[in-house]
Amino acid sequence: MGIKVYGSPVSTCTARVLAVIEELGLEYELVPVDLSTGEHKRPPHIERNPFGQIPALEDGDLVLFESRVITRYLVRKYGKGSDLLKEDTPVEAATVDQWIEVETQHFNGPISAVVFQHLFLPLFFGGTTDEKAAAAEAEKLGKVLDVYEVKLSKTKYLAGDFYSLADLHHLSYGHYLIAATPHGSLIHSRPHVKAWWDRITSRPASKKATAGLVLAI
Amino acid sequence: MGIKVYGSPVSTCTARVLAVIEELGLEYELVPVDLSTGEHKRPPHIERNPFGQIPALEDGDLVLFESRVITRYLVRKYGKGSDLLKEDTPVEAATVDQWIEVETQHFNGPISAVVFQHLFLPLFFGGTTDEKAAAAEAEKLGKVLDVYEVKLSKTKYLAGDFYSLADLHHLSYGHYLIAATPHGSLIHSRPHVKAWWDRITSRPASKKATAGLVLAI
Ligand SMILES: N[C@@H](CCC(=O)N[C@@H](CS)C(=O)NCC(=O)O)C(=O)O
Ligand SMILES: N[C@@H](CCC(=O)N[C@@H](CS)C(=O)NCC(=O)O)C(=O)O
Repeated sequence: MGIKVYGSPVSTCTARVLAVIEELGLEYELVPVDLSTGEHKRPPHIERNPFGQIPALEDGDLVLFESRVITRYLVRKYGKGSDLLKEDTPVEAATVDQWIEVETQHFNGPISAVVFQHLFLPLFFGGTTDEKAAAAEAEKLGKVLDVYEVKLSKTKYLAGDFYSLADLHHLSYGHYLIAATPHGSLIHSRPHVKAWWDRITSRPASKKATAGLVLAI
Repeated sequence: MGIKVYGSPVSTCTARVLAVIEELGLEYELVPVDLSTGEHKRPPHIERNPFGQIPALEDGDLVLFESRVITRYLVRKYGKGSDLLKEDTPVEAATVDQWIEVETQHFNGPISAVVFQHLFLPLFFGGTTDEKAAAAEAEKLGKVLDVYEVKLSKTKYLAGDFYSLADLHHLSYGHYLIAATPHGSLIHSRPHVKAWWDRITSRPASKKATAGLVLAI
């Protein structure tokens, strides 16, 4: 049977899952779901994810949605020896979880809004970037990255001196922020954030996983 | 030393942590952080959580923030025998994680917006409820609960026939939705959601944890 990922290589949430798959060196099949025709809102996809979004994972009988849940599952099942979750050491595991949740609760909101305004809105919805709204979200993102700058002046990666899911989850939106918006300097102007960004994006698995993120306007 | 929770008993995110503590029967100390004087934005609290929010946990040398990270840590450390995470059985663990993430990604946004409009805005910020905005968020919440209704027609709890963190994380905002907004019918009008709600709120630990959620207008 093998692992099937239902999604699209240009989608940030799909790339988040691919980043783990590449990191663990797993075989997989990417089954395209075409958002432009609303395939994600109809059966069979809506049976994989009742909220009608990509990605979804199929692994044997198990079907899962939510990218950050899929990454955790894959590491637990196929990445026992890896540092990606550190579940054998409770305090380190909690620290990884802490920074996974920071990405979810603090980073994802503003960065996805900036990328939406500058990339998805004009490209897919025929809209015009609301510069004021985009700037407000960029400012919020900057404040979040100020916290990262302090943390990353103390450790090489977010959860400590090891690469974990907490870092990996940032790859796909960070990629589009730099490649497709005028706000890449939010990352490049902060020295420790920039060094961390170079470190995590230069991993061969990261390069493979983000190679499909080719959208541009 | 023991467990210290920095927060406020009237805060939803603090009550989320207390719900696990009560469920596991742990001793703890609640150290009040006064939001009204901005105590959460200053040292020492800002050193516990650089984003300046409550709650934070102290357990020995470990300091953690983000309520859903704290609950996971407490279950792992003190709830080995419990079903709250089911980490010994990978597929069930992934299913719990799936519904924990649904609460985070789909339920929390609209329900916190409704509670903000009807409770926190008038009470703490001297504002007037924006009825249109509140209704739009209530409608979104209804669509999320439609998905819950289908799921809960098949299993007694969100992740299966066992009570888990995925259920528990809903307690505090659900409490205020019913107690302090006109939108409690979003829960009560859906038979399986209502039966689930009665089931999870009738647990002694749930009652203790939400006893402090006394805000009203
Ligand atoms: N929290 C979800 C978000 C999924 C998501 O927003 N997916 C987008 C593509 S990146 C999608 O399916 N958009 C179409 C829609 O929401 O209708 C995850 O991380 O998997
Ligand atoms: N995602 C955080 C949210 C924490 C949060 O929003 N806390 C509120 C109280 S319930 C707070 O500190 N508000 C004050 C502020 O954000 O300035 C968690 O779950 O712990």
